[in-house]
Amino acid sequence: MHSNTLLSQTLNAITPADTVMRQQARARLDQLAIPHWALGQLMDTAEELAAMTRSMAPSVKRKAIAVMAGDHGIVAAGVSRFPQAVTVEMVRNFLNGKASINALARQVGASLTVVDAGVAGDLTELYHHDALWNRKVAAGTADLSRGPAMSRAQAIQCLEVGIEVANHLADTTDLYATGDMGIGNTSPSSAIIACLCGCDIATVTGRGTGLDDAALNNKIAVLDRALALNRPDAADGLDVLSKVGGFEIGAIAGLILGAAAQRKPVVIDGIISTAGALIAASLVPASRDYMIAGHCSVEPGHRIALNHLGKAPLLDLRLRLGEGTGAALAMHLVEAAVAVLTEIATFEEAAVSQANTPESANTESVAQ
Amino acid sequence: MHSNTLLSQTLNAITPADTVMRQQARARLDQLAIPHWALGQLMDTAEELAAMTRSMAPSVKRKAIAVMAGDHGIVAAGVSRFPQAVTVEMVRNFLNGKASINALARQVGASLTVVDAGVAGDLTELYHHDALWNRKVAAGTADLSRGPAMSRAQAIQCLEVGIEVANHLADTTDLYATGDMGIGNTSPSSAIIACLCGCDIATVTGRGTGLDDAALNNKIAVLDRALALNRPDAADGLDVLSKVGGFEIGAIAGLILGAAAQRKPVVIDGIISTAGALIAASLVPASRDYMIAGHCSVEPGHRIALNHLGKAPLLDLRLRLGEGTGAALAMHLVEAAVAVLTEIATFEEAAVSQANTPESANTESVAQ
Repeated sequence: MHSNTLLSQTLNAITPADTVMRQQARARLDQLAIPHWALGQLMDTAEELAAMTRSMAPSVKRKAIAVMAGDHGIVAAGVSRFPQAVTVEMVRNFLNGKASINALARQVGASLTVVDAGVAGDLTELYHHDALWNRKVAAGTADLSRGPAMSRAQAIQCLEVGIEVANHLADTTDLYATGDMGIGNTSPSSAIIACLCGCDIATVTGRGTGLDDAALNNKIAVLDRALALNRPDAADGLDVLSKVGGFEIGAIAGLILGAAAQRKPVVIDGIISTAGALIAASLVPASRDYMIAGHCSVEPGHRIALNHLGKAPLLDLRLRLGEGTGAALAMHLVEAAVAVLTEIATFEEAAVSQANTPESANTESVAQ
Repeated sequence: MHSNTLLSQTLNAITPADTVMRQQARARLDQLAIPHWALGQLMDTAEELAAMTRSMAPSVKRKAIAVMAGDHGIVAAGVSRFPQAVTVEMVRNFLNGKASINALARQVGASLTVVDAGVAGDLTELYHHDALWNRKVAAGTADLSRGPAMSRAQAIQCLEVGIEVANHLADTTDLYATGDMGIGNTSPSSAIIACLCGCDIATVTGRGTGLDDAALNNKIAVLDRALALNRPDAADGLDVLSKVGGFEIGAIAGLILGAAAQRKPVVIDGIISTAGALIAASLVPASRDYMIAGHCSVEPGHRIALNHLGKAPLLDLRLRLGEGTGAALAMHLVEAAVAVLTEIATFEEAAVSQANTPESANTESVAQ
């Protein structure tokens, strides 16, 4: 990879979150006029936000959700109940403002950008929409059960699509969220998770949009063959993305890398977005410091991937939709975490009496 | 109880949520252009909101959080690490806008009402605040480890305090939330839960604001004696409230009953609020239909109480603060549930293709 490409520049710009600022945030949170760490995961998130933004008053007001769309050659192997035409139909639905992510983006006050990173169908009639970017790498990936999903050059290209989106939104965005659309895309996601988390494919493969037992078994068998055939190198995220990935998954990874290079938080949605997060973390481990896990879905591979990333999800609402819906819902909680850091008085500031006895070590472990 | 009291009028006004409207909501949600029920618990909540408000476009915009404050004679038995003066200090903190619930109420756009339902300390200098109601039933309950916490008349009185607050807020409120402040109040809450859920006290008693092992064991022993001494009648919610309850817990139950009589949703906060919800459900089982469980805290009795009420919590963030903080956080998700019901197009409306095969029964059970 040449050092002057957009990708390499972005990878090189990513540094870990700031430990001094993390300690400073923790010191304040430790003193809030509440039982110690009694706001639990909200306080964990507040501490992380301070560390990633290098600020005791992190900005998260201006929110942007990017929905990356792409298609998958592997649908030919019968891994989804829905026809591939749905990807195009849903992109149209996004642009008409009538899909789930539109409703939830409006509710949290986030902008929505839809990116054609590799939809199989023709979207020409829709490209005039400002909210739709035409960055089609190809008309869907190749069938990864018969060979690599894409070339290494295409893998770099879709990563750079995501980075480009993040950079374009940078001036107007404090908080990013990832989303996906692509019929069949739990299949490459499961393959990426199996490879990068070192798991058996059967343990990370789920029903997607609603497969029955026979179809689930077929999906597992297809993915098992795909991994055996392609032998993706777990030490090389680009190789994994190109062998068993998807264009929208690469674009999601790129968006995350772009956010991390900007030292801004990015909320990760479901299993497809988390597969993208694994690719990003594989390319630059420090990019994990900028990820916030929005939720844990019902797909079995999702929790495994989140654990691998060391991320505790904010929500667990039995979601299995994608589109960025779980990330949009969690953006509220990210804002709440900032309120915890910036708007609650300490014992001293509020003149509230402290406990008569220190919390025991035992209790600390319960609290944290 | 005379039929013309505020309490009896309110109890009589509560009817179950509407099954026809529930079916109508489910019929629409079943057709949304997403995999079936793929927004999980958000869709469950949307269905419940339609049934309780009798509307396919439930109003939840105008939000009100009521924080009920009271003190507890049982603190003399060493059940809390914090001195009782903290109840007064925190009420002052609420009125100064610097507490956790202030930050989270602002973030979700909810009004905040603080009610002195039975604080031991003198709050006279604060009663000029519009946001503070003086409805002090008494200066703290009696020590329930030595006798009943309050008289039956006082139990009715604190329930009516909560109803009065709900009725006062009715014209400006679509969505209620409960909150509490009272040093020592996990103790009566655990006693109520043990009694009304038929559990051993040890299984529902936790560390509250941070007890160590020895102090936790003492708390369990004290509550065990209190239950043996008072023998609250699990078939009579008023008896349970008067024997082992608290004034703020009664006021919370009253607020819930008032909301239910108005056919409006009320988000339940932590273990103290859920103990109040158990009292409300014991008086009128149909009041459960109007409750939304905001979160599940780290207190072991909380999940047991939620299960008894048949409520799945929206959040699980290791909170253990009270004040209404978990309910405030969940109000966002209630708004999101309404957006799901009202703003997402169906397959037909969006002209999106449906699945090639119906979801299997197996998948349905995963999805719902």
